Amino acid sequence: MAHLMSTSCSIKISSSYRPFGQPLSEDRTVLPNSFTIKTSKSPFKRLISKGHRAGRSCGVLAIAASVSKEVSANPRSGSDRSPNDSSKPQRVMVIGGDGYCGWATALHLSNKGYEVAIVDSLVRRLFDHQLGLDSLTPISSIHNRLRCWKAITGKTIELYIGDICDFEFLSETFNSFEPDAVVHFGEQRSAPYSMIDRSRAVFTQKNNVIGTLNVLFAMKEFREECHLVKLGTMGEYGTPNIDIEEGYITISHNGRTDTLPYPKQASSFYHLSKVHDSNNIAFTCKAWGIRATDLNQGVVYGVKTDETSMHEQLYNRLDYDGVFGTALNRFCVQAAVGHPLTVYGKGGQTRGYLDIRDTVQCVELAIANPAKPGEFRVFNQFTEQFSVNELAALVTKAGQKLGLDVQTISVPNPRVEAEEHYYNAKHTKLIELGLKPHLLSDSLLDSLLNFAIEFKDRIDTKQIMPSISWKKIGVTPQTVPAN
Amino acid sequence: MAHLMSTSCSIKISSSYRPFGQPLSEDRTVLPNSFTIKTSKSPFKRLISKGHRAGRSCGVLAIAASVSKEVSANPRSGSDRSPNDSSKPQRVMVIGGDGYCGWATALHLSNKGYEVAIVDSLVRRLFDHQLGLDSLTPISSIHNRLRCWKAITGKTIELYIGDICDFEFLSETFNSFEPDAVVHFGEQRSAPYSMIDRSRAVFTQKNNVIGTLNVLFAMKEFREECHLVKLGTMGEYGTPNIDIEEGYITISHNGRTDTLPYPKQASSFYHLSKVHDSNNIAFTCKAWGIRATDLNQGVVYGVKTDETSMHEQLYNRLDYDGVFGTALNRFCVQAAVGHPLTVYGKGGQTRGYLDIRDTVQCVELAIANPAKPGEFRVFNQFTEQFSVNELAALVTKAGQKLGLDVQTISVPNPRVEAEEHYYNAKHTKLIELGLKPHLLSDSLLDSLLNFAIEFKDRIDTKQIMPSISWKKIGVTPQTVPAN
Repeated sequence: MAHLMSTSCSIKISSSYRPFGQPLSEDRTVLPNSFTIKTSKSPFKRLISKGHRAGRSCGVLAIAASVSKEVSANPRSGSDRSPNDSSKPQRVMVIGGDGYCGWATALHLSNKGYEVAIVDSLVRRLFDHQLGLDSLTPISSIHNRLRCWKAITGKTIELYIGDICDFEFLSETFNSFEPDAVVHFGEQRSAPYSMIDRSRAVFTQKNNVIGTLNVLFAMKEFREECHLVKLGTMGEYGTPNIDIEEGYITISHNGRTDTLPYPKQASSFYHLSKVHDSNNIAFTCKAWGIRATDLNQGVVYGVKTDETSMHEQLYNRLDYDGVFGTALNRFCVQAAVGHPLTVYGKGGQTRGYLDIRDTVQCVELAIANPAKPGEFRVFNQFTEQFSVNELAALVTKAGQKLGLDVQTISVPNPRVEAEEHYYNAKHTKLIELGLKPHLLSDSLLDSLLNFAIEFKDRIDTKQIMPSISWKKIGVTPQTVPAN
Repeated sequence: MAHLMSTSCSIKISSSYRPFGQPLSEDRTVLPNSFTIKTSKSPFKRLISKGHRAGRSCGVLAIAASVSKEVSANPRSGSDRSPNDSSKPQRVMVIGGDGYCGWATALHLSNKGYEVAIVDSLVRRLFDHQLGLDSLTPISSIHNRLRCWKAITGKTIELYIGDICDFEFLSETFNSFEPDAVVHFGEQRSAPYSMIDRSRAVFTQKNNVIGTLNVLFAMKEFREECHLVKLGTMGEYGTPNIDIEEGYITISHNGRTDTLPYPKQASSFYHLSKVHDSNNIAFTCKAWGIRATDLNQGVVYGVKTDETSMHEQLYNRLDYDGVFGTALNRFCVQAAVGHPLTVYGKGGQTRGYLDIRDTVQCVELAIANPAKPGEFRVFNQFTEQFSVNELAALVTKAGQKLGLDVQTISVPNPRVEAEEHYYNAKHTKLIELGLKPHLLSDSLLDSLLNFAIEFKDRIDTKQIMPSISWKKIGVTPQTVPAN
């Protein structure tokens, strides 16, 4: 069941984001603001492959098409119908749609019948080049990713390449695509990255805060009814000694009572930028009637979703390095390569976790059940809590089943954080909307481990150890991690 | 008792701040980063004047000298001794020392025996030019202000002209001046200004957040023992339906208890920038051991301090316009010129207020009693609470005593805020440190009114009305207020 494929995409490229190597607040080189490249309508003609790993070209497989069909029939949420039962599909702009969560989300929404556009500056790929890092999985260019998606499913995802800190560019994307919902993953998302040096700290806060302000202004100016689905982080709350609620807490004090924003105690310049965003968004909901959902996400693990599994050109990135890698993913890679699992400090640090298949499900649930005008809604987006020691034990057990000899070492904690603490965070609102969690199980761990083993040859052990210290951050620009 | 005056100051000028007229996030014109001007050591020779309003030159008066002496002998706080009883005076850098609170503070600290340096980009003066506004009082250039201060008191205040968002410039000021304390007023401080248009909103948050981040990094890198005294605002708290505490609140929840940052509900992009600052500073105290005091200041009124009264070239600015003017000061100017007092909406908006003479006193108390390493201390800096209607009634009564016919009108509220609400904010910590408040009295109001009457000819009634709407803010740059 081969498709005759053609792609046409108007790619807008803005060059006003500020790559590193230049001080950020003292820009000396200024390039023209944005320019447009129209790609030629170069049809792929019957690029057919027959195997799982089909080389560089995008294969259209009967197997892939059938996966697609199966996914579409999945009754999990509001699937496979025009969202909101209106005849016109909802138009969703995914900012940061080339990244780990963004890419999986864009494909999932496209597969579910939403009209999707990706807005991305691709700066995440630049970070890898600059820091000498690489995804465990080989990832295709965004252009090839989208051509492949079109080839397999017949669905077009529009692409706008540029920086949302450039308001002229962002305005064009809004006026061109006319989104009904904006899913905003378009931020520098690594705590260690934000703690490399002063210029990265400043970049992270400037990029994240100004980008989000621009999105809010674009919504107010061009798409007042649009629903903002903003990715936040559970890290905004820190580790208070009381239960963490979903965004708000009712406080009785001196005989009076009010429901107020839950106090925040962020622990890196990145996490702080998310707190700033949340406060800015809450204000615009009140002042302008913006409708917004803040998804305070836990640590995401896993790599495959129904959509990214369809073809290797759709594979998602998997970061295992000390800058962008997160606990469970990194542990699996370490186990696969025989590197001891690196527990930071005592390992009692407890956080919320979720499978990337639940990330995409949660975002869709938020879009399908939008916030009201003026409402600033906060969902805690995770499914289970684990301490770092518990994760290490789970990976050790799963590794042993696969015949791996898994060791664990404690390394000096590069962060400033409590290593033993109370942690109990609520996460019922997404469940109430219909989330069916994929809980962490032996079989999932096995598949993650097997995936890591499959790409074992690509693992660069030099990237694994933490190299960025919260206390040692200085003002001198670091071009590579310190170790 | 004439002094033979000479001034020598190394003035560092940085040109990397971004004046308006150019989009801020898409800088096209980039000037060299900073350059240094060494002023010639041009002594003033016997510039003596005999009257209160001495024209453009700086007069040295017996009367002024005696005032100075009297002020120095004032036993109110840690006055007139080397701070901390060490033989070496404490060195205090006042960022934003050319502004309304900053100028009064710099002079006060200098008068009290501190070694003072002012760091300022002078951008506040540019805002007036760009928006067609002016201070009620004529204010001298910063250079003449400092020459005059030296002439009258013999005390030198060092001057660094540049933008703290330019880290190279800021580093130079730290390494050159070596501050023991940094008083940070160096922010865009008007809520209406931040709500003019998108570019001003973005400028406000970028300028304030990045400037403060740079100060924190400079402290960590160059002056680890330095104490940061940061001007915040009571507006960070909003108007919760429970008592407002000083920075933190103890919450009992589901059987457990913790003391957490007091929830914030800021109501403009300016107020939000202060919340962002507070969160960033709190983190660096915890992560790096920074010592910091956050002064959540109420609305400041008044214009004269002991020091600014010494000579007209030392006069402070007094803003009465719809952008930078604040409630009580504006009401007095309105009463003086026969303009109705403009109450926004119902007038039940209640806030904390303080005399500018208490601002300078509070800052000195914070410096003389520094926070411990790693401590993030929050003081609510105001002395009394008033609703807008109460202020209007007080000004009406004081005006009548002076024979003025004072009317009050309600104008549509340009802000989004509760106009009737509970408000009870604690403010005991500065009292415990020794603050002796100047409470608002008829005599003070009389003097403020008389001051406004004295400069009545300079009042431009076109500046008085509010012209900036929280709801109408758009993305098109506004070069003048909308009315």
